[in-house]
Amino acid sequence: MKDQPIITSLMDIDFYKLTMGQLIFLKYPDVQTTFRFINRSKGVPLAHHIDIGELREQLQHVQTLRVNNTELHYLRGTNEYGERMFREPYLQFLRDMKLPDFELSTKSDGQVRMFFPGPWSTNTYWETLALSITNELWCRSQMNGLSQFQRELIWAEGQKRLAAKLVQLTNPQNHGLTISDFGTRRRFSKEWQWYVVRTLTEELLPGQFLGTSNVQCAMDHGLLPMGTSAHELPMVLSGIMHGSDEEIRASSQKVLADWWEVYGHGLSIFLPDTYGTDFFFDDLTREQVEGWKGFRHDSGDPIEFGEKVIHLYQQHGINPMTAGKFIVFSDGLDINTIIQLHNHFKDRIRVSFGWGTNLTNDMSLRTLSLVIKAFEACGHGLVKLSDNLDKATGQPDDIERFKAIFGHTTTYRKQCVV
Amino acid sequence: MKDQPIITSLMDIDFYKLTMGQLIFLKYPDVQTTFRFINRSKGVPLAHHIDIGELREQLQHVQTLRVNNTELHYLRGTNEYGERMFREPYLQFLRDMKLPDFELSTKSDGQVRMFFPGPWSTNTYWETLALSITNELWCRSQMNGLSQFQRELIWAEGQKRLAAKLVQLTNPQNHGLTISDFGTRRRFSKEWQWYVVRTLTEELLPGQFLGTSNVQCAMDHGLLPMGTSAHELPMVLSGIMHGSDEEIRASSQKVLADWWEVYGHGLSIFLPDTYGTDFFFDDLTREQVEGWKGFRHDSGDPIEFGEKVIHLYQQHGINPMTAGKFIVFSDGLDINTIIQLHNHFKDRIRVSFGWGTNLTNDMSLRTLSLVIKAFEACGHGLVKLSDNLDKATGQPDDIERFKAIFGHTTTYRKQCVV
Repeated sequence: MKDQPIITSLMDIDFYKLTMGQLIFLKYPDVQTTFRFINRSKGVPLAHHIDIGELREQLQHVQTLRVNNTELHYLRGTNEYGERMFREPYLQFLRDMKLPDFELSTKSDGQVRMFFPGPWSTNTYWETLALSITNELWCRSQMNGLSQFQRELIWAEGQKRLAAKLVQLTNPQNHGLTISDFGTRRRFSKEWQWYVVRTLTEELLPGQFLGTSNVQCAMDHGLLPMGTSAHELPMVLSGIMHGSDEEIRASSQKVLADWWEVYGHGLSIFLPDTYGTDFFFDDLTREQVEGWKGFRHDSGDPIEFGEKVIHLYQQHGINPMTAGKFIVFSDGLDINTIIQLHNHFKDRIRVSFGWGTNLTNDMSLRTLSLVIKAFEACGHGLVKLSDNLDKATGQPDDIERFKAIFGHTTTYRKQCVV
Repeated sequence: MKDQPIITSLMDIDFYKLTMGQLIFLKYPDVQTTFRFINRSKGVPLAHHIDIGELREQLQHVQTLRVNNTELHYLRGTNEYGERMFREPYLQFLRDMKLPDFELSTKSDGQVRMFFPGPWSTNTYWETLALSITNELWCRSQMNGLSQFQRELIWAEGQKRLAAKLVQLTNPQNHGLTISDFGTRRRFSKEWQWYVVRTLTEELLPGQFLGTSNVQCAMDHGLLPMGTSAHELPMVLSGIMHGSDEEIRASSQKVLADWWEVYGHGLSIFLPDTYGTDFFFDDLTREQVEGWKGFRHDSGDPIEFGEKVIHLYQQHGINPMTAGKFIVFSDGLDINTIIQLHNHFKDRIRVSFGWGTNLTNDMSLRTLSLVIKAFEACGHGLVKLSDNLDKATGQPDDIERFKAIFGHTTTYRKQCVV
């Protein structure tokens, strides 16, 4: 490898991969799935910028890593979302786990082609690991040819921008505004993410910084690991239950039932936009609206989304403030959006912010929108519709069918820049 | 502080402080005790060598430390000696714990006077923390005036000696010989201890290196934290139960009952030499000999001790090999003693070695025998008789009384050089 390995521990991963990973291990260990890398920033032919040989070596290095005893202790001792949330059979599985092989090549249009086939119980972990690597190689490629001092200036620019964020966040008017680091997959570098997290820990007002989605980063800083679930759960479940329209539609509720069965109230945060939030809200039972803690917003207009959530609670006679319900916003946030949303919803519903690209990669470099998505399960193409058509994934025919099944009529489209 | 803090985490401590600490927290939280620092190397006026002001600052820095969330996760997830061996009330206590004040001054003979008074539930933790600090300051004092290169030569000498140990340990003849690092309190430096542990992890034969007594070091290397209990338990119990001879004698069995109640079979290793091994063996019930896993040897002739242990098992009709009984030797070991003991007891009883000073401080520098011992409890002077009169502690009158109570007739005396 030209450089040191980017990933040196399997715990340099988003916590939600482990919460989902346990559910997969317990309930769907043998399901064959494929995940696919997508560069949403189509104008950038990534393979012209990064060295595919080095990307391969970095990914192969991840396959040599194993979860060590200290990491198992840490997970076994994680009780903030429920006592013994990680069960011993899962921890023993993790101890022996090796990431499955991947397929990597360059397409004629200069894009990187990356597929991760294998049993869902192991290929699921590739997502944030491979994204952190690819993104860091992209960042490095932009610094090719720079002198040492010029590189240091990029770091200095990052510090300046971070300082400006801190000024706004610690303004007494924003007392009560809380954020978390969700920037693992889009970080400038691991070193920079760690620096940002340490700085937020030290410089924000008491209680403002809730934690980080990165397990190793949480371990290293004594913070709370943050996260719940992602779109891959409903997406893969649609493949497992694939058949009639009714069976596919039912897969959305099956996810909620599985999740509640494994984690109960502790991790009960809805992610409603896989097939459109309108369908999801209509599909929720009264018991679920009352029982679950809140929602994560990941696409579509955030104000409109929040208003819909408040309306939903009111329809069920629930005052979201007194009932302690909340929304975690996590879609392409920047400091202005965060403060705007905080002020808009203040005293109406609790909100918090899972801050990604613009927190851990705001250095003046161009950022890309790279994702790894569940692509196939049990031989069926998977679909995400989202509340933003620019985030939709799947084959055109499948997308049309799923739109019909889920009554998806969204026309909102916003380019994914991060 | 002239230098960086030596102790940067409360987990840079021997594991047995936590296993004992939990028992103390659960059963004797309000007992007032005093621990005392003793330099057994009486010929060295320590206060002439180390800066008492810096020692004070290093100790005060420890008082600023708190157990963080990651460390709590780690302890909560420690299950190698029993599921959930650390209970939640104890972990919550640890989270808020601050080490109590200490008394530090210089005696007219140039020795350091250090006392640690306070509730047993918190002053117990000072032992290895204060010893690691004092010992490292002593090591640094011996390097005063050395050039950078001369200091590097000391490190190189340590590497050479470590390499020589590895040659002997990995000799195929010594297959099955297992060791652990018990050298926290006597280490040349923390950096060196970590280096030694990493080297043993990488260079010993599979299964030869069992782990380290240092919790932070175990965490950093994914190793098993090792340790059970120390003499302070029977010593302080004698103060708590102080009264008639019978009451004092009964305190030895009370320790065993308490320990079994809290940890059961998982940590059932006898430490028999507090008041002499002969008394201890006579005092053991058949059920205890059968139920507990084995013994730790910490004073007296090790071969003689091992033979007595084997004899004890045989008296009870137990074949120690087939019953899986073992002895952990931990008294001033060097490589020759380790190999001699390993060969002597091979195929008769399982043995293992908790290696201290000569493992983590074999650099060509002079080493001292520094200890911190329980000195008073509930206003009563405490006594350790040991199987080596040179290790005995206590006031002369108290020692005489305890000798009579426990029928202690040992005349073995071996100077403590480490």
